[in-house]
Amino acid sequence: MSSPDSIQLGDYLFTRLLQLGVNSVFGVPGDYNLRLLDHVEPSGLHWVGNCNELNAAYAADGYARINGLSALVTTFGVGELSAANGIAGAYAERSAVVHIVGTPPRPLQNSRALMHHTFSDGEYRRFAAMSTHITAAQTNVMDSVTAPDKIDWILQQALIHCRPVYLEIPDDMSETLVSSENLKTPIRVPVTPSASHESQVIARILERIYSAKKPVIFVDGESRALGILDQIESLIKITNWPTWTTVYGKGLVNEHLPNVYGLYAAAFGDKPAQEYFESADLILTFGPHYSDTNSYFYTAIPKAASAILFKDSTIHVENDIYRDMSSSTVLTHLLQALDSTRLVQATGPPKLEITTTDIQDTDIIAQKNFYRMVNPLFAEGDIILTETGTAAYGGRKFKLPPKSRLFGAVTWLSIGFMLPATLGAALAKRELNKPTNTKNQTVLIIGDGSLQMTAQEISVMIKEKLDILIFIVNNEGYTIERVIHGRKQAYNDVPFWRHTQALNYFGADKEHVKNSTFQAWTCGELKEVLKNEQVHSGSGVRIVEVFMEREDVEGPLLWVLNKQIAEEKQQGQ
Amino acid sequence: MSSPDSIQLGDYLFTRLLQLGVNSVFGVPGDYNLRLLDHVEPSGLHWVGNCNELNAAYAADGYARINGLSALVTTFGVGELSAANGIAGAYAERSAVVHIVGTPPRPLQNSRALMHHTFSDGEYRRFAAMSTHITAAQTNVMDSVTAPDKIDWILQQALIHCRPVYLEIPDDMSETLVSSENLKTPIRVPVTPSASHESQVIARILERIYSAKKPVIFVDGESRALGILDQIESLIKITNWPTWTTVYGKGLVNEHLPNVYGLYAAAFGDKPAQEYFESADLILTFGPHYSDTNSYFYTAIPKAASAILFKDSTIHVENDIYRDMSSSTVLTHLLQALDSTRLVQATGPPKLEITTTDIQDTDIIAQKNFYRMVNPLFAEGDIILTETGTAAYGGRKFKLPPKSRLFGAVTWLSIGFMLPATLGAALAKRELNKPTNTKNQTVLIIGDGSLQMTAQEISVMIKEKLDILIFIVNNEGYTIERVIHGRKQAYNDVPFWRHTQALNYFGADKEHVKNSTFQAWTCGELKEVLKNEQVHSGSGVRIVEVFMEREDVEGPLLWVLNKQIAEEKQQGQ
Repeated sequence: MSSPDSIQLGDYLFTRLLQLGVNSVFGVPGDYNLRLLDHVEPSGLHWVGNCNELNAAYAADGYARINGLSALVTTFGVGELSAANGIAGAYAERSAVVHIVGTPPRPLQNSRALMHHTFSDGEYRRFAAMSTHITAAQTNVMDSVTAPDKIDWILQQALIHCRPVYLEIPDDMSETLVSSENLKTPIRVPVTPSASHESQVIARILERIYSAKKPVIFVDGESRALGILDQIESLIKITNWPTWTTVYGKGLVNEHLPNVYGLYAAAFGDKPAQEYFESADLILTFGPHYSDTNSYFYTAIPKAASAILFKDSTIHVENDIYRDMSSSTVLTHLLQALDSTRLVQATGPPKLEITTTDIQDTDIIAQKNFYRMVNPLFAEGDIILTETGTAAYGGRKFKLPPKSRLFGAVTWLSIGFMLPATLGAALAKRELNKPTNTKNQTVLIIGDGSLQMTAQEISVMIKEKLDILIFIVNNEGYTIERVIHGRKQAYNDVPFWRHTQALNYFGADKEHVKNSTFQAWTCGELKEVLKNEQVHSGSGVRIVEVFMEREDVEGPLLWVLNKQIAEEKQQGQ
Repeated sequence: MSSPDSIQLGDYLFTRLLQLGVNSVFGVPGDYNLRLLDHVEPSGLHWVGNCNELNAAYAADGYARINGLSALVTTFGVGELSAANGIAGAYAERSAVVHIVGTPPRPLQNSRALMHHTFSDGEYRRFAAMSTHITAAQTNVMDSVTAPDKIDWILQQALIHCRPVYLEIPDDMSETLVSSENLKTPIRVPVTPSASHESQVIARILERIYSAKKPVIFVDGESRALGILDQIESLIKITNWPTWTTVYGKGLVNEHLPNVYGLYAAAFGDKPAQEYFESADLILTFGPHYSDTNSYFYTAIPKAASAILFKDSTIHVENDIYRDMSSSTVLTHLLQALDSTRLVQATGPPKLEITTTDIQDTDIIAQKNFYRMVNPLFAEGDIILTETGTAAYGGRKFKLPPKSRLFGAVTWLSIGFMLPATLGAALAKRELNKPTNTKNQTVLIIGDGSLQMTAQEISVMIKEKLDILIFIVNNEGYTIERVIHGRKQAYNDVPFWRHTQALNYFGADKEHVKNSTFQAWTCGELKEVLKNEQVHSGSGVRIVEVFMEREDVEGPLLWVLNKQIAEEKQQGQ
């Protein structure tokens, strides 16, 4: 049937994704994508059918943050719009999700037919127009001639920007023959030519590095998108300089290196760390992302006078912005030129160690003790996800094992995200572990309010036989919102659920159900639970429900809560 | 504090909604709407906290279809985008949902602060721009002077268009004092002045009515949005002419009137009905909505030569379109002028009766017997919701009791919609029943695939103590998609759930859990279940799980399935 140089469009697309390391595809079947889905498994990829499209988008985001790229398939209108919030989150926090939308067949679009999944008004471009606000690039494949180049272009855009892209495939095109010529050439991120001012910039940075008396390395989360994590690790090791991360950067550097301090929390953290950081004369800042949440209300942002920022295509030295630069290239050249004998021997403040000796068995579980108690569970290569809310604040204090990753609350902060993201991250990790036959745990810590948003995805975790440990923090509602406003308001409550029934309801094996759900109210009970083999190194999905007080918070949240209480007092409430 | 003519903005908004008959507000609390939520219950409205925003939007849509108007509160970015698909569905199928978005405080917006729930780039208008594609009108309240008029305008737009609207309220404005002057004047849909050509149009229609030999009244679903249901009922009674509805129109006219036939299904229905309809010389068509699903692939659309269409602001007679008309006004004037002695005595085809005598106790439950068996459950005033998929097709054949309502698959067809819509519809009905102390059942029939999309909202039904009976059609996946394409493909399967655990998991009272879940495989078993008092007239949420075959379909779906099987044979699969 097909000429030697041709391939069906669906096969072309999924072959390209596979070449780029995408091994699983997330999504939900729908009328306009079924024919496309016929090509997923024959192309060698695994289809993960999610319970709904928002969950699928969240899962794809989680997968992409571990794997570098992911794919999501939804159907026109109903499916793609359900995924919108997940796509927007991937944009905000730089996750390369390829959102593939199966659209109505071209004859129907061209004739403006009044089809279902439209507004029955002949207008087919409405949802694509919406996507332009939340994706880095968009394309609509409408003919066989331009299809391969369009697909290649959109995949490359996802990689370049490390953000979601939007790809429309009409339902009648999945079997359309297209040229397979492009498949011989891998898709790569283009290398930026060195700007003419590059050597000048490197010289200026080196000068600052050699003259620094009190230097800091500060790693923020966009470093992942910039592809500079290896260079940063080299720099940390060569300089031995005190290194901190932001919330977003946490988990991207090895916290077991002697000079890595973990998170920098300005006034909300360790005082000696704050004093050191604020008096530093050089803060090499990688992948800065200055949202309020990620910067402790902007207090953890380095001063311009001491900062050198490495960003997407700019490098900032004091108040000068050098454009059209590749941070990756500059860093490589910088490392090549660096004379380590000319570096100051910087001694940072003393390191804080996490201890649990003050915790009594009779203590009730609380934000101040819980995270320290679960921290020893984590092993090399594990993924730990802390949902927006109290869990994300608690997770900031973890000491992470090497090669582990942490997902926290950065900027988008869409509650419900972390549960499906856990599914995606765990799946990506299992696939990456396959060649070395390694096993890792994926650990989710999530509040009961967030859990209710996307709980059904637990059934997909079970179906996919993933090793996931879920801590449900049951504090009877949205404690993070209670802290911000409406401390005693009923609108911050959530319906009562029996979380111990989750594994049974969501279809886990009867034997597994029996020994995989736990509850703890006191630290003594939690200690016992954590000793259980099925908890610390078991298989499948396991659930530990821990109970905390409704207004139990720590750190910055406690500060916000106290502000609210003070206001209430002032108003005589 | 406040001057005599002022009121806090939050109170103004919710007072206006209450004046318009909105008694409950749906949504999810979020950082930028908490202060607004402080005003819901003090203004006399009930707050329904949903599990997530898509569910909240669906619930608000269901509420508005029963109540006429509804309100949904979400938070900027994360919340509103999660609701997008629900809002789009409300647009497509004409449901007046006021989508209120709590946005960041004005100082933060004005300073382009890098806040959470943004893309951390200072851009605050992105999501509002997206909303323009899926709402009938939008407004952003940004100062106290224009606020009351803006709110009034947007609420009026929702009523005029019977579609969703988008209202932004910055978090710092909930307590802002605004003029309360407007509150003295109720918000009303403006009456369209009679067009100069109105009498000419009425004369032409009357001429057609008097000369008709074989007339039909055809009621489509937009009649609800046009506010002409009472006039249509008068016309049906005065003329005694054969009356059919579309899928969308079903449940809007009293099917117990002798001349009302229920649904017109063209070649997919009763042959004598088709013959009568197709040979009619006059088809008075109200609120036409010609999507593929609603018109049996366009086969149930009246021919232009016989049709007179009553639409939003146009009336179509043969090929002439009269613009700037109010269907409601024209109908009222038409009824006043109508001389009933000049009407033909039209006799329609024989009516089909629903019988169950052929069903044996040992028969397995199937599409062909299930709907006939549950039909006697429905009583006057009940609401029956049939989710997109096989359930919606099954529901087309119900004989509905007077004053009942049916929700079916019209155009948007977003699976997962019906479960939260059931919550919203049941709540609206309970509120409307309150003055007469009437009790009604709300009955949902939903497939297992659809249920998994939004299942958590069962917990809100429980929390709200609603009387809801849920039939879960367990056919192990998306049977509707299997029929369209991928009959044996794994992508049309769904994870295995133990539906009998739902009430327990979602927090129902232990005693209620014991006697409110049922299963049936055979018609005999189903018969017994339907006799149970807790099923047919019980309280709270009850679940009946019925098992059907994976490819069991009826009617048009069987036709589509057979087409696929024929194609498979041709391809030698």
